Amino acid sequence: MHHASLDREGMRALRYAGGAVRLERGWPVPVPARGEALIRVTLAGVCATDLAILGGYAGFDGTLGHEFTGRVIAAPDAPEWVDLRVVGGINVACGACPACLRWERSHCEQRRVIGIRGRDGAFADFLILPVANLHPVPDGVSDRRAVFVEPLAAALEILEQTHLRPSDRVVVVGDGRLGLLVAQVLALTGCEIRVIGRHSRKLGILAARGIPVHAGETVDLSGWADLVVACGGGREGLALARRLVRPRGRLVVKSTLPEPAPFDFASLVVDEITLVGSRCGPFPAALRLLAAGVVEVEPLIDAVFSLEQGVEALACAAGPGTLKILIQP
Amino acid sequence: MHHASLDREGMRALRYAGGAVRLERGWPVPVPARGEALIRVTLAGVCATDLAILGGYAGFDGTLGHEFTGRVIAAPDAPEWVDLRVVGGINVACGACPACLRWERSHCEQRRVIGIRGRDGAFADFLILPVANLHPVPDGVSDRRAVFVEPLAAALEILEQTHLRPSDRVVVVGDGRLGLLVAQVLALTGCEIRVIGRHSRKLGILAARGIPVHAGETVDLSGWADLVVACGGGREGLALARRLVRPRGRLVVKSTLPEPAPFDFASLVVDEITLVGSRCGPFPAALRLLAAGVVEVEPLIDAVFSLEQGVEALACAAGPGTLKILIQP
Repeated sequence: MHHASLDREGMRALRYAGGAVRLERGWPVPVPARGEALIRVTLAGVCATDLAILGGYAGFDGTLGHEFTGRVIAAPDAPEWVDLRVVGGINVACGACPACLRWERSHCEQRRVIGIRGRDGAFADFLILPVANLHPVPDGVSDRRAVFVEPLAAALEILEQTHLRPSDRVVVVGDGRLGLLVAQVLALTGCEIRVIGRHSRKLGILAARGIPVHAGETVDLSGWADLVVACGGGREGLALARRLVRPRGRLVVKSTLPEPAPFDFASLVVDEITLVGSRCGPFPAALRLLAAGVVEVEPLIDAVFSLEQGVEALACAAGPGTLKILIQP
Repeated sequence: MHHASLDREGMRALRYAGGAVRLERGWPVPVPARGEALIRVTLAGVCATDLAILGGYAGFDGTLGHEFTGRVIAAPDAPEWVDLRVVGGINVACGACPACLRWERSHCEQRRVIGIRGRDGAFADFLILPVANLHPVPDGVSDRRAVFVEPLAAALEILEQTHLRPSDRVVVVGDGRLGLLVAQVLALTGCEIRVIGRHSRKLGILAARGIPVHAGETVDLSGWADLVVACGGGREGLALARRLVRPRGRLVVKSTLPEPAPFDFASLVVDEITLVGSRCGPFPAALRLLAAGVVEVEPLIDAVFSLEQGVEALACAAGPGTLKILIQP
């Protein structure tokens, strides 16, 4: 069998262990357990979280990577999935804790997260995920676009959490990978949006789509916005984002700061600001927007590395001003 | 005329100026301008904000006090208000800025706030407010209850800002003046509520109404609550409140911390917590609840001081474990 032959050869996996990252060859191909599928990774994306893990975040040990698209090779309990092109939700839930019983599986108390917490990730020839996590990729969505489903879903999570009106004023602070996706998704509501970033090349991708951008703090939008999304820039970006929110406005926080930062709770109360932490989002909606062609992701791809060059791919992604780096097994 | 005779005698006012508080006698009775009313103060309440002002908060200079009930003495443009018992919204808005045009007058950019910012307050024989700020007090609501309208409205603001479901789990952290009102108001939704405080006497007021209370941290409710309200306890109270919120839950912040406090934004994002700053609320709703008799405020009154003893009243209110101190001109 195909699967058996793979088993004998083993596979390649970009693994982080003992504080170092390296490409392992002949690593055992994982065997799907009950309800799981074996997926051959077609294309994977490097994310800020992967780079944070190299810096010690989450204390992860194992195969890196959580943004991917691939093809199902085996699914013992669900043979109808075999040969389908798929993307997959990254949180593997227990199904029994209070969060799972509320159907908030991305907040499962026992969750494992591929490439981040307790489960091997997608920078490898093969990957295992529960069939329940999989979503078929429509024919019209190429691999190069499907690999953006995970971060695009994270952008859509904002609209799962808060009602954005077509007449709202919105600022996205940050022109990194996530900021460019968030800006595109929010602009689809018809809202009056501005993006503040630092890199004219990145901002140019949005400007080309008619989204108003500002490089640096060349514009004073203090108190202008009904909703601001902080998509990077660390403490400074967060402080800028806070300043732009009008009284009774909302500040969505997408960027994770490694350490607690000082925050002015008196002004939060006096101005009645709402702060919303935002993480993983809905894959099916992201796939629908990609299929509709209303979000452009391919201009974000700066380079595609082979899995053999995985270590170099991570180094490149960490470079200043780099957008999306893909890894192709 | 009644008014003219008052003018000649002057009035008493408990004023904070130059870092000191004292009772002035023969202070000029204010004269209502266009659209304003002159109100004889019947009863006023001391609030934590008054005490914070004595510590330098808000840089206020003038007559203290913003919780009050009284009777309209004169209203040149609105004579139908004369002789009515009233309470009054504390924010005096410009009517022309973006916040006012959104009908969010409590967030007016130019607002003055009686006893807090740029306008004399209610610890005096008389007070001036725009007629637009006034609300008639129903006959069935005594002065001793009407004087609680302002803080009760602040408690109701939580329900203006966020949808509380009858099946939600709620914790109120803090058993001070505001905490006891917040707990009673939220309990009316039918939610499953717990109150965590430090003083068995204060908690007893709620327990007598069938609201479950916990003195100290005798109970572990970590991650239990859909919604937590932080009503005091400073940084420690805020940190405890945060711990009790479940993933995707909400933390309403009522207590203002004088200085920025460290906050873990990474956990806000990972757990997708929503933080809501909350301040002034709807007076008419507060009056309806008092008229209906479903909120009990009189057990919160620890003492009533005459205006002559105003300085002593403030000192008493600042004492440990004190609930509501009233001042009667």
